[in-house]
Amino acid sequence: MAGNTFGKIFKLTTFGESHGTALGGIIEGCPAGIALDFDAIKSEMQRRKPGQSAIVTQRKEEDEVQFLSGIFEGKTTGTSIGFIIPNTNQKSDDYSHIKDSYRPSHADYVYEKKYGIRDYRGGGRSSARETASRVVGGSIAKQIIPEIKINAFVSSVGTIFIDKPYQELDFTKIDSNAVRCPDEATAQLMENHIKEIKKQGDTVGGTITCVIQNVPIGLGEPVFDKLHAELGKAMLSINAVKGFEFGSGFCGAQMKGSDHNDLYNLDGTTKTNLSGGIQGGISNGMDIYFRVAFKPVATLLQKQEHLNNKGQIEVQQGKGRHDACVVPRAVPIVEAMAALVMADYFLMDKINK
Amino acid sequence: MAGNTFGKIFKLTTFGESHGTALGGIIEGCPAGIALDFDAIKSEMQRRKPGQSAIVTQRKEEDEVQFLSGIFEGKTTGTSIGFIIPNTNQKSDDYSHIKDSYRPSHADYVYEKKYGIRDYRGGGRSSARETASRVVGGSIAKQIIPEIKINAFVSSVGTIFIDKPYQELDFTKIDSNAVRCPDEATAQLMENHIKEIKKQGDTVGGTITCVIQNVPIGLGEPVFDKLHAELGKAMLSINAVKGFEFGSGFCGAQMKGSDHNDLYNLDGTTKTNLSGGIQGGISNGMDIYFRVAFKPVATLLQKQEHLNNKGQIEVQQGKGRHDACVVPRAVPIVEAMAALVMADYFLMDKINK
Amino acid sequence: MAGNTFGKIFKLTTFGESHGTALGGIIEGCPAGIALDFDAIKSEMQRRKPGQSAIVTQRKEEDEVQFLSGIFEGKTTGTSIGFIIPNTNQKSDDYSHIKDSYRPSHADYVYEKKYGIRDYRGGGRSSARETASRVVGGSIAKQIIPEIKINAFVSSVGTIFIDKPYQELDFTKIDSNAVRCPDEATAQLMENHIKEIKKQGDTVGGTITCVIQNVPIGLGEPVFDKLHAELGKAMLSINAVKGFEFGSGFCGAQMKGSDHNDLYNLDGTTKTNLSGGIQGGISNGMDIYFRVAFKPVATLLQKQEHLNNKGQIEVQQGKGRHDACVVPRAVPIVEAMAALVMADYFLMDKINK
Amino acid sequence: MAGNTFGKIFKLTTFGESHGTALGGIIEGCPAGIALDFDAIKSEMQRRKPGQSAIVTQRKEEDEVQFLSGIFEGKTTGTSIGFIIPNTNQKSDDYSHIKDSYRPSHADYVYEKKYGIRDYRGGGRSSARETASRVVGGSIAKQIIPEIKINAFVSSVGTIFIDKPYQELDFTKIDSNAVRCPDEATAQLMENHIKEIKKQGDTVGGTITCVIQNVPIGLGEPVFDKLHAELGKAMLSINAVKGFEFGSGFCGAQMKGSDHNDLYNLDGTTKTNLSGGIQGGISNGMDIYFRVAFKPVATLLQKQEHLNNKGQIEVQQGKGRHDACVVPRAVPIVEAMAALVMADYFLMDKINK
Repeated sequence: MAGNTFGKIFKLTTFGESHGTALGGIIEGCPAGIALDFDAIKSEMQRRKPGQSAIVTQRKEEDEVQFLSGIFEGKTTGTSIGFIIPNTNQKSDDYSHIKDSYRPSHADYVYEKKYGIRDYRGGGRSSARETASRVVGGSIAKQIIPEIKINAFVSSVGTIFIDKPYQELDFTKIDSNAVRCPDEATAQLMENHIKEIKKQGDTVGGTITCVIQNVPIGLGEPVFDKLHAELGKAMLSINAVKGFEFGSGFCGAQMKGSDHNDLYNLDGTTKTNLSGGIQGGISNGMDIYFRVAFKPVATLLQKQEHLNNKGQIEVQQGKGRHDACVVPRAVPIVEAMAALVMADYFLMDKINK
Repeated sequence: MAGNTFGKIFKLTTFGESHGTALGGIIEGCPAGIALDFDAIKSEMQRRKPGQSAIVTQRKEEDEVQFLSGIFEGKTTGTSIGFIIPNTNQKSDDYSHIKDSYRPSHADYVYEKKYGIRDYRGGGRSSARETASRVVGGSIAKQIIPEIKINAFVSSVGTIFIDKPYQELDFTKIDSNAVRCPDEATAQLMENHIKEIKKQGDTVGGTITCVIQNVPIGLGEPVFDKLHAELGKAMLSINAVKGFEFGSGFCGAQMKGSDHNDLYNLDGTTKTNLSGGIQGGISNGMDIYFRVAFKPVATLLQKQEHLNNKGQIEVQQGKGRHDACVVPRAVPIVEAMAALVMADYFLMDKINK
Repeated sequence: MAGNTFGKIFKLTTFGESHGTALGGIIEGCPAGIALDFDAIKSEMQRRKPGQSAIVTQRKEEDEVQFLSGIFEGKTTGTSIGFIIPNTNQKSDDYSHIKDSYRPSHADYVYEKKYGIRDYRGGGRSSARETASRVVGGSIAKQIIPEIKINAFVSSVGTIFIDKPYQELDFTKIDSNAVRCPDEATAQLMENHIKEIKKQGDTVGGTITCVIQNVPIGLGEPVFDKLHAELGKAMLSINAVKGFEFGSGFCGAQMKGSDHNDLYNLDGTTKTNLSGGIQGGISNGMDIYFRVAFKPVATLLQKQEHLNNKGQIEVQQGKGRHDACVVPRAVPIVEAMAALVMADYFLMDKINK
Repeated sequence: MAGNTFGKIFKLTTFGESHGTALGGIIEGCPAGIALDFDAIKSEMQRRKPGQSAIVTQRKEEDEVQFLSGIFEGKTTGTSIGFIIPNTNQKSDDYSHIKDSYRPSHADYVYEKKYGIRDYRGGGRSSARETASRVVGGSIAKQIIPEIKINAFVSSVGTIFIDKPYQELDFTKIDSNAVRCPDEATAQLMENHIKEIKKQGDTVGGTITCVIQNVPIGLGEPVFDKLHAELGKAMLSINAVKGFEFGSGFCGAQMKGSDHNDLYNLDGTTKTNLSGGIQGGISNGMDIYFRVAFKPVATLLQKQEHLNNKGQIEVQQGKGRHDACVVPRAVPIVEAMAALVMADYFLMDKINK
């Protein structure tokens, strides 16, 4: 029940704390005979890792993936793929200040209460560093379903929003700026805002929009394992996520049926797509799109009250190298989780063929 | 992979189409020795069933649950609980008009594409009638965790919102009106709006807020099976749901960390609760609260374009007895799914004890 | 964890006690569009049910299956198939004599210790009556894989064994006698032996051999879910089973490698088949064959010592209608479980295609 | 579906080929706060590894386990435990002779047919080297249930059997000889026999008996997940296993009920234990004992016919360092798999408390 596995057919099981020897995982259910593109994997890892730009944490993490099994002469063999990502740079960090105290809006307190013990260094298992293993899994998942296109981008930072529908955006521009927002004017505003927030020792939340295109009709399982329900769980499992909506989302809840229904074209596509590419939990071939809300990072470079394990409040000055805004680095994580779901449901649907 | 099962320890597996002989399910993992309150189960079923008030569908469904196993002399025995809910009133309905045509924003088209066959009567497996089985499961789940209080209510209909925080609401008033909105003035506005919409042969969406109180600290599993991720999946699996947010939700994505962090009191509770009772996927003992968005019902009592299986558009006049707004009847379903998650995670956590 | 589900893709989940209202189950993962042969299902149920011949129990159980969902106009729809088997004839039996006492070599004592409560009537959930649901599942499984031939037969009763290899037997003769032994001379000896044992108020054990033919190459999953490991678990889950061996089995453990290795023919078949059709957990296209050991039925029509719940030994005279030898009626159960495994692994392998 | 995971609560997921970079796995569901005995783990690894004595293969495998996560300051933290076992000595072996040919009674042929590709070096994923990861998992499992005693030993080699019941054996003598047979006279006969077989370039099968003592009453789940069914699957998943029997086993199938039933003592124990410590799939507190049949190792140091991928038979001379009899080294593997099952069912039963 330990919650370290994602997926049913294409499965990723992960391990690792932020300051242990290594992170890693096992990928199961990867079809045999796929000639893996290792550069693509490396490139996804680069997108997630800290220190890429001025607006993200300057922590150095090499995030080099070592594959240990399941690949022979460059091709997948159908057996489980083990991998590790050594923690090369963490050893020297000093976390003694939080050994006996619980940071606000972190998981320190609940881990201690649940398990009676916690690896306090860098958040241990609850650290977002864990998502590195997800990106490995996701980048392999993408290679199983090359025809399905998955693009995520930052759609808001604080109260700065892109004010265009995704159809008007050029996804090739996503990585052209540090924020990963494909609308360049908005990106500039966001970047400035993040720098300002950072200067204050504060942090800010944001949202990521993800668009999945060229999806075959029929992916998704009725009732409890609807495609969007699994996408929602996937996103909500990412650190700091507070909300998920797809298609018309929360706005749709304000609409009338006569405005909301997507009428058909003769070829089975629909004139509008408020449904977000999914009907009754099953893909209908239209674009799947959803939006994910991230709260502001809890670690502030300010003085803050902690609770310690003697039941006292103590004031600590936040320090270290932390993101002022997590969403730019979360873009590849959202894509990775989306890819894990899509590959899993793609393989699942083969049973029906 | 068929997606008919929810839960890991406390599991509900369901079957049934809207116009088959019966719906039903199997509940596994229910602890032994619980003296079931059958009136409470019946009462939850009553809350979900059609025809309760002027603003919901006037369809008659008796929704009488027959328990077939797992209960001996009124007590659970620890073995699987089989149950059925006969479909007593559906036989006579005429669905020949949609036999060969796909209603917009329904699952008709994708079922046909995925399976090559569909029980077209009343939506078959994709009908919301399937949620009756969820309410049976949920009402038993509630009896496993009597100390945990779960209250859902309608927080918006169309653009009419309750403008108070949930702390100012009296949950005992939820069932005092047809809309299931505990704020009476707002409830009246909502009810009038739904009647107006109904007169137009139209439908309208809405949101449900759910508050879970008195939760033990420590429920939830790290990484992929975070408590809120499972709650999100549970809600997103309900028909017509388009979004889920918990704690600060999408608003939290606009905030700064210094405003968002929940500072501790000396007893481990927090002064604010923007986290929504969950840290790192694990309950912290504060109230869990979340909001669920429902799109407007797709079946309109208007003329609408359907696609037929010859690839033609045909105009059909919607008819029959349907809800103009689904949220009042969805309240017990949201509670049921929340109860399934909480009971499951409650039992899961016993392994750690 | 409750153990009521068998299978991963093609899944059977069951419920029901021997003296409750009904037994039943849910079949998930059945491919869509299969025109079910209901007579075949009925016929399998007939083979399992009591009262078919002089050598089995004369208890009357109608074992009529009612399908409630997942089937539309005679064809499977891909959604979950719910079914019930009403317990029509059990109500009047008197089980008050075992209410407070534990029969030797029955599960009465361990159920009471594990759950603190038990439905004592007829063994409750531990009754072999539960296998009726397995036969429903297995008879549908057979229809998914019509090309794979599954034949089980009684290969020994007590110390009376068939002394021929299965290749010399005519499987069409299996149902030609009450023992379900295709070798008629041996069948006669077995039948006489069972009648003799029955006269003594005693019972006797036996073995069933099962042969699975025309299996595609490649079914089975490496490491923990080897095809024969799942077959073994399937058989060991049947009431009264004490052992499982496949291919050369326990005899193989006495052999030398030079005698045991199966050398290849040019077409990939093997000259011998001591492997039993499975290499490294994966089918190689040769016949799969295995043997299952059943202990003698524990209920004797004799005086026997019971333990009661006051910690006393009491002598009770066994009574009622019970099998003197369970293996003839277990033949369709062995076939059903084999079919469940083969259909599941057949569908599982489609993911690799 | 890939079959690399064993267990439901206490789960072991493994990866690794015999000649890849490393083997390894992830252990989930290990309770928090256990001070691990790393020497005990190392000692179990030593028992399994090649080269321990004159009668086993002289291959050198260091089998050093590196733990990467889930352990903090020597104690388990409740999070997933990742580990690797580097393949230090395999690189230089030459397997080009089997690159295009399939050894008899090995999995070469079926892997190629199932996956269209195989890592032919040393059997790849089908190599018994994979069991090293099982021993890691099993040795941690043992530490979760220290009160339960698990002892396996060699009970036969070829046609040489221990002729005593296990109650007359001294389990502390198991590791006192190279064969791991606690009866010294028999051990000597076995050892001589293996040496003789080895001289012939041949191999021989054998059986292992395992005894599990001091088991709490109530472990096991009814119907499909009976305790002995899971033990059976666990054993059958080990390379080269052809059969499993528990309690009276295949002999029990020859007995009469009046001889087979285990009568109660006043304290709930039984006078005999033909049931093998399990009733209806649930432990009754008596010793659990079972026997596992291993076929002779397929790799012979003789000339043998292979099939090659051009559909030709070719004669190859077996070479290298291989076991003439696998059972002595399989003893710790049997114990490991038994420990995995017992720890899993022990934790599972906590849900009922």
